[in-house]
Amino acid sequence: MIGRVLVLHGPNLNMLGTREKNIYGTTSLAEVNNKIYKKAKSLNLHVDIVQSNYEGKLIDCIQSAYGLYQGIIINPAALTHYSIALRDALAALEIPVIEVHITNIYKREAFRKTSVIAPVAYGQISGLGSLGYCLALEALADIIQKATREE
Amino acid sequence: MIGRVLVLHGPNLNMLGTREKNIYGTTSLAEVNNKIYKKAKSLNLHVDIVQSNYEGKLIDCIQSAYGLYQGIIINPAALTHYSIALRDALAALEIPVIEVHITNIYKREAFRKTSVIAPVAYGQISGLGSLGYCLALEALADIIQKATREE
Amino acid sequence: MIGRVLVLHGPNLNMLGTREKNIYGTTSLAEVNNKIYKKAKSLNLHVDIVQSNYEGKLIDCIQSAYGLYQGIIINPAALTHYSIALRDALAALEIPVIEVHITNIYKREAFRKTSVIAPVAYGQISGLGSLGYCLALEALADIIQKATREE
Amino acid sequence: MIGRVLVLHGPNLNMLGTREKNIYGTTSLAEVNNKIYKKAKSLNLHVDIVQSNYEGKLIDCIQSAYGLYQGIIINPAALTHYSIALRDALAALEIPVIEVHITNIYKREAFRKTSVIAPVAYGQISGLGSLGYCLALEALADIIQKATREE
Amino acid sequence: MIGRVLVLHGPNLNMLGTREKNIYGTTSLAEVNNKIYKKAKSLNLHVDIVQSNYEGKLIDCIQSAYGLYQGIIINPAALTHYSIALRDALAALEIPVIEVHITNIYKREAFRKTSVIAPVAYGQISGLGSLGYCLALEALADIIQKATREE
Amino acid sequence: MIGRVLVLHGPNLNMLGTREKNIYGTTSLAEVNNKIYKKAKSLNLHVDIVQSNYEGKLIDCIQSAYGLYQGIIINPAALTHYSIALRDALAALEIPVIEVHITNIYKREAFRKTSVIAPVAYGQISGLGSLGYCLALEALADIIQKATREE
Amino acid sequence: MIGRVLVLHGPNLNMLGTREKNIYGTTSLAEVNNKIYKKAKSLNLHVDIVQSNYEGKLIDCIQSAYGLYQGIIINPAALTHYSIALRDALAALEIPVIEVHITNIYKREAFRKTSVIAPVAYGQISGLGSLGYCLALEALADIIQKATREE
Amino acid sequence: MIGRVLVLHGPNLNMLGTREKNIYGTTSLAEVNNKIYKKAKSLNLHVDIVQSNYEGKLIDCIQSAYGLYQGIIINPAALTHYSIALRDALAALEIPVIEVHITNIYKREAFRKTSVIAPVAYGQISGLGSLGYCLALEALADIIQKATREE
Amino acid sequence: MIGRVLVLHGPNLNMLGTREKNIYGTTSLAEVNNKIYKKAKSLNLHVDIVQSNYEGKLIDCIQSAYGLYQGIIINPAALTHYSIALRDALAALEIPVIEVHITNIYKREAFRKTSVIAPVAYGQISGLGSLGYCLALEALADIIQKATREE
Amino acid sequence: MIGRVLVLHGPNLNMLGTREKNIYGTTSLAEVNNKIYKKAKSLNLHVDIVQSNYEGKLIDCIQSAYGLYQGIIINPAALTHYSIALRDALAALEIPVIEVHITNIYKREAFRKTSVIAPVAYGQISGLGSLGYCLALEALADIIQKATREE
Amino acid sequence: MIGRVLVLHGPNLNMLGTREKNIYGTTSLAEVNNKIYKKAKSLNLHVDIVQSNYEGKLIDCIQSAYGLYQGIIINPAALTHYSIALRDALAALEIPVIEVHITNIYKREAFRKTSVIAPVAYGQISGLGSLGYCLALEALADIIQKATREE
Amino acid sequence: MIGRVLVLHGPNLNMLGTREKNIYGTTSLAEVNNKIYKKAKSLNLHVDIVQSNYEGKLIDCIQSAYGLYQGIIINPAALTHYSIALRDALAALEIPVIEVHITNIYKREAFRKTSVIAPVAYGQISGLGSLGYCLALEALADIIQKATREE
Repeated sequence: MIGRVLVLHGPNLNMLGTREKNIYGTTSLAEVNNKIYKKAKSLNLHVDIVQSNYEGKLIDCIQSAYGLYQGIIINPAALTHYSIALRDALAALEIPVIEVHITNIYKREAFRKTSVIAPVAYGQISGLGSLGYCLALEALADIIQKATREE
Repeated sequence: MIGRVLVLHGPNLNMLGTREKNIYGTTSLAEVNNKIYKKAKSLNLHVDIVQSNYEGKLIDCIQSAYGLYQGIIINPAALTHYSIALRDALAALEIPVIEVHITNIYKREAFRKTSVIAPVAYGQISGLGSLGYCLALEALADIIQKATREE
Repeated sequence: MIGRVLVLHGPNLNMLGTREKNIYGTTSLAEVNNKIYKKAKSLNLHVDIVQSNYEGKLIDCIQSAYGLYQGIIINPAALTHYSIALRDALAALEIPVIEVHITNIYKREAFRKTSVIAPVAYGQISGLGSLGYCLALEALADIIQKATREE
Repeated sequence: MIGRVLVLHGPNLNMLGTREKNIYGTTSLAEVNNKIYKKAKSLNLHVDIVQSNYEGKLIDCIQSAYGLYQGIIINPAALTHYSIALRDALAALEIPVIEVHITNIYKREAFRKTSVIAPVAYGQISGLGSLGYCLALEALADIIQKATREE
Repeated sequence: MIGRVLVLHGPNLNMLGTREKNIYGTTSLAEVNNKIYKKAKSLNLHVDIVQSNYEGKLIDCIQSAYGLYQGIIINPAALTHYSIALRDALAALEIPVIEVHITNIYKREAFRKTSVIAPVAYGQISGLGSLGYCLALEALADIIQKATREE
Repeated sequence: MIGRVLVLHGPNLNMLGTREKNIYGTTSLAEVNNKIYKKAKSLNLHVDIVQSNYEGKLIDCIQSAYGLYQGIIINPAALTHYSIALRDALAALEIPVIEVHITNIYKREAFRKTSVIAPVAYGQISGLGSLGYCLALEALADIIQKATREE
Repeated sequence: MIGRVLVLHGPNLNMLGTREKNIYGTTSLAEVNNKIYKKAKSLNLHVDIVQSNYEGKLIDCIQSAYGLYQGIIINPAALTHYSIALRDALAALEIPVIEVHITNIYKREAFRKTSVIAPVAYGQISGLGSLGYCLALEALADIIQKATREE
Repeated sequence: MIGRVLVLHGPNLNMLGTREKNIYGTTSLAEVNNKIYKKAKSLNLHVDIVQSNYEGKLIDCIQSAYGLYQGIIINPAALTHYSIALRDALAALEIPVIEVHITNIYKREAFRKTSVIAPVAYGQISGLGSLGYCLALEALADIIQKATREE
Repeated sequence: MIGRVLVLHGPNLNMLGTREKNIYGTTSLAEVNNKIYKKAKSLNLHVDIVQSNYEGKLIDCIQSAYGLYQGIIINPAALTHYSIALRDALAALEIPVIEVHITNIYKREAFRKTSVIAPVAYGQISGLGSLGYCLALEALADIIQKATREE
Repeated sequence: MIGRVLVLHGPNLNMLGTREKNIYGTTSLAEVNNKIYKKAKSLNLHVDIVQSNYEGKLIDCIQSAYGLYQGIIINPAALTHYSIALRDALAALEIPVIEVHITNIYKREAFRKTSVIAPVAYGQISGLGSLGYCLALEALADIIQKATREE
Repeated sequence: MIGRVLVLHGPNLNMLGTREKNIYGTTSLAEVNNKIYKKAKSLNLHVDIVQSNYEGKLIDCIQSAYGLYQGIIINPAALTHYSIALRDALAALEIPVIEVHITNIYKREAFRKTSVIAPVAYGQISGLGSLGYCLALEALADIIQKATREE
Repeated sequence: MIGRVLVLHGPNLNMLGTREKNIYGTTSLAEVNNKIYKKAKSLNLHVDIVQSNYEGKLIDCIQSAYGLYQGIIINPAALTHYSIALRDALAALEIPVIEVHITNIYKREAFRKTSVIAPVAYGQISGLGSLGYCLALEALADIIQKATREE
């Protein structure tokens, strides 16, 4: 195993595939998570996944990630646009964070075009559906391996 | 019974009638709720009421309303102005949502004039005190009956 | 009779039900007015209704309401967004004014989200169709009765 | 005759040719109207022309155009920049509206660069003097003929 | 007589002294007009006074002032802040226009701080109550006499 | 004598009549002051006049006016647009302050349209040249006499 | 021949009729150009037409127009909204420039509502499809003939 | 004992001294709390301390403070900048609230310069590290003693 | 081979690895391109790569891609922030476009946070270095295969 | 003695306790200064105090503080909001500066919410009345002692 | 001697070379002035130099320059960004003014990018250190000589 | 020879002296270039000069300057205000860049007051006509000589 990655899904992502399918598609969160587990396995990464509708719960998770994980993938959902508390929690970690959005947030309402998370993330992937999480895993695998080699 | 309605009170509304009476009046939340129950009964509507100071809790409630209720009345209180997560939870439902404000939010501080909830609501009633909830119930009764007839 | 109410319809509302039916519905102004008269009667309120495409005419009406009516219901239509003259006319009255919009103005073009009338109104109802006028009548009946009792 | 067109001149255009000649030129409104009549005749169009300093009057005219005219040419003058009521009246019609400005409004004060009418117009011609009306007539003749052929 | 002056009162000023007395004082428009007539007489000026709630009516008056008056005093009231049509009517005249406000508009709501009329006026007097009209008359008397002498 | 008035001229007004005559006219500050003295005498007011290019000096003067004067006339010149310190000094006084501008500041550069002084002034006169000071004296005489009578 | 006119098409207009037909229609650039040539001939104007995706190329063309053409018709396409270089090239010419847009740019995305070209153009025609070019030719014919007569 | 004070630490402050030490210093929250307890004792104040990453939890605490505490010290951390719900909870109390920030928030990112809490606080101390809490305790001791004396 | 992809590098990307290495890293464009070719091969995609400092050249390339490629990967570099012409060229295509940025543009200067390209792209990857291009290739392979299957 | 501190009071603070007592309280500047001297003595600090209405004078003082003082406490009063010259003078010093405001500036007019001084200060205390100066002295005593120990 | 030039240094420039050397360099104002005197001599210009921390003092100097100098070089330092009084003093002169900044003000804080002085200056030199003053002298020598020749 | 300098002229500067002479003067680009060559020779600098209307061409030139020149003088003309691509090309170089504008860009249209180039330039000279290039050469000579001495 080359490393451990925490995947966080923000508010309302538990409804994936059951609501607003025209925007978010028909894949359920369980299916997305299965894809993530499978991809992680193929990359030799351990992955843990948490979804919560509570900003506070997501912050608790991020804080407890310290020392346990080598990378975080987060889809902050609606919190992307205003949760400075989430931003500060992520900024306090010293591990790479990749922000993922299932939809292309730059194609939607004006308020979705600003991410308060992006300036503290390592990178961002948006609009590529559930594949976005898998690509983020590849990126983290790459980063973690490089970091290991450099040590 | 013509339908089921969920009534949600946002943060600090549990303090109604005990604080800032000059702004919010002297009626307690319990009294407001009694009015709501009575009005619902008279309209032959079943009503459930939840108050929470947690954005996450309100989202949980909204998500679980799916399939159980034919309408939602929400007074998002302070969350009106920034909780995109609440907005997304409401937008994902396919039932009518009526936004109620006890005070006229357009008469107060500038930041209270913008509702991130309103664009995903069916309608909005503001400034009419606790009566606003009762009028919202009437509107929902009307909408539910029309929808039933159309089926 | 518990009181007298003046109902004002702003510019273009005489076209209700004949134009842009996808936005404003198929009910004509005459039908809306019938609903209003019927509701008023049931509430024991006298109601007079005026529609005009002239800002000046609407102001004349508001000014002459002084001493004759105990409440005003106004759908200022397009004037909602710029007629400070209408606002001043309403602000000068000492009787409650309820602003009604047939559509949910917060779901439409950006310029429709600002009401120069709202800060001088008692309350606002938007998005509930012609029912909005009836709910406004209920609210006024409630306010007038309370005021009478207090005297 | 291929169709009927209503031409509307907004506030102060009755002063054309007598005031601020350095901006608006020396041609009087009567002369402009003569040009319009002549051009219309040459295009086999019937044309009626109205000028008013009252927003309400212009809206009355637009509303009564329904079913009588196949196109409207409007120079809203100062109302261009704030009369949402005029905009709504025009938007409610289902016939093509061409907005004409005698001067190039994009060369003047900043507030003249925004037209609330343009988004509901078919097209806009500005800066070409009284010729602009004639070109608008040509465009309407073209549109009406195409529509007739398509029926 | 040294000249003729037209005094225009905008929307709602006919309500002076009867409404919102805490803001506008207790003097009625008739009393204000009496003061104006008296002052005009003392300055050897002829004065005509018009009040209207119609923007269109005020524009008609301004247009017909051409050649008949040597100066205009206008209190545009609420139209101050948005009536570009009024502005254009005044700009088209070649006689001095003095804008008068009974209250200090810079002490009130933010939207009252911008006058679209001021940039085309000769001068502005605000906050000095009905005295403001009298001072405007003095200023016009001064300007007219100087102009006469220069001819 | 009915009262004492302090007249303050802000930065660069000592250059009146010698520079930028196309904007400010050809009357020198000495001539303006003479007019003021003469007018004051005719109104039975005592008047003292100070000009300074130093914000601090103007504040010193205003502070020392306390108890000595019944009114202030100030032309804050360029300080109009940014000197909150001047504003605070004037706000601290309990006597009426009239702001005078020789030119119509609403006709000039955008930055001249905002006065930080106006919201704490009693009234404002702009664009009426040196006559503005005389009209301000009249207004103060009127205010002081009314206040005296009320005592 | 009464004069020579240069017609310039900006970036992506070579794709007319083959892409985004719902926005730009189905007429190809070749067909548009044919219409232009025919109209020019009927007006006794010589016309040359250039299309380029390069801002620099368009500027070269404009510069070389000096002395050779009596008018320019330009559809700057996307460059409309940011190419100050194009604006400066056009401003430097002393011949009339008419800006043409096939679609009504005021009906589309917010960023398309601002033209940096318009303030240096003689006039603008938008929303009238390929007919816009022909109307622009008529306008230029009119302007050139008047100029010739005045010489 | 002269009074009881509630100290609230917002999201991520439990990480103090372990993350981003270059910004927040090396003192842990436990150490900060010890300082607070010691200072409170020296001032004869009882103090209770709560930290939470949940906005809802902080609001619960504030609501339950009613009648139990004579003052609140709050470091809202990231919630400073958007939690209107927290603001409303604090505004509803009738006891003095002092807002404390360990860092100088005016030296950091632009979004940290706006506090939605400050307008409902009694005062604010920022940039003085953990000492800020102790100074806030001194201020509360002073305020509580004065209030007690006044009763 | 499952499809053909065009990769476009915008202005200054030919300098990769030789300038501003602290921002863009030490990998040269040739090395990046090698990675892209290798990845494409492994995914069974044909890939062509173009770099240009000319906006016009990039538009030419995009236009000629029509019918030849099934997807585009573009790093518009500085043009990201203002080239509406590039945006229109991409929008006119009917094949998926993925926008790639080597650096996290949301961590840099304010003007780099707005992409005029993103609203017409399928998705965006930023901050993941040259790996971003490879992930974009994976995404395109996935999209092209799904599209093929659906046919 | 542990160090020397310079206390600066900006414009109008010499009026403390005699004007606008509802905002600034009834304590005079002399009384405030006495409190400061007493507190300084108790902390074993030497303190010098200067008040001026002149920005230039305050800058002179700050410049001459170099090498003589180990800390500065400044209440810039109205200069807080615009005096970049004061800011630059403070920024040039290498000793800690604490900004003090007697009132809570975040509760007042919008323009008082921005401090151009704060970004160059060590910390800020606002809303705690004259006690604020004493708390600032404590903070400086703490900072100076730590700095001494570190040497 | 070909002419006389006044050089003005604004607030805090007397601290040059002793504070914030990383920004402003290590050259003292005395050394800068020596360079200026030397350069002036070589250009056959007489030069007088004044530095002041008082806006009022700088205005006094500028006013007294009238008739004595043929050009002004001013480094307004912090006053660059807000002193409209300084601007007005310079605008009133009829001699060329060159604005000099030692640092490149466009590379620093956002508020330093706006100069209220620049629109009334002849030209501006920024970022070239003390050499900037010498280049400004060269430019003035050139301008003065041309003006002399033209007379 | 002390060094090599590249001089770049942006779009439309080839028209210098032949168009808009009231703004840009009557000197042709050839004459300006002659001045530059002469000045360079007198300073013992080699100079190469390029003018282009193509942003892409200017970027090519800047990129090829690497290692060949010790300094760049650029007048980006209209590109000053939007060409981030030009900015990035200049920022990538490690040699000093001086931005020159013939006119005082701060005296003209609002959009000309922002330079996207200035933040990456060493310094800027504007408003001094063609002399600006010569002064820029002097500055570069000074910088290059200092750099040489430091090596």
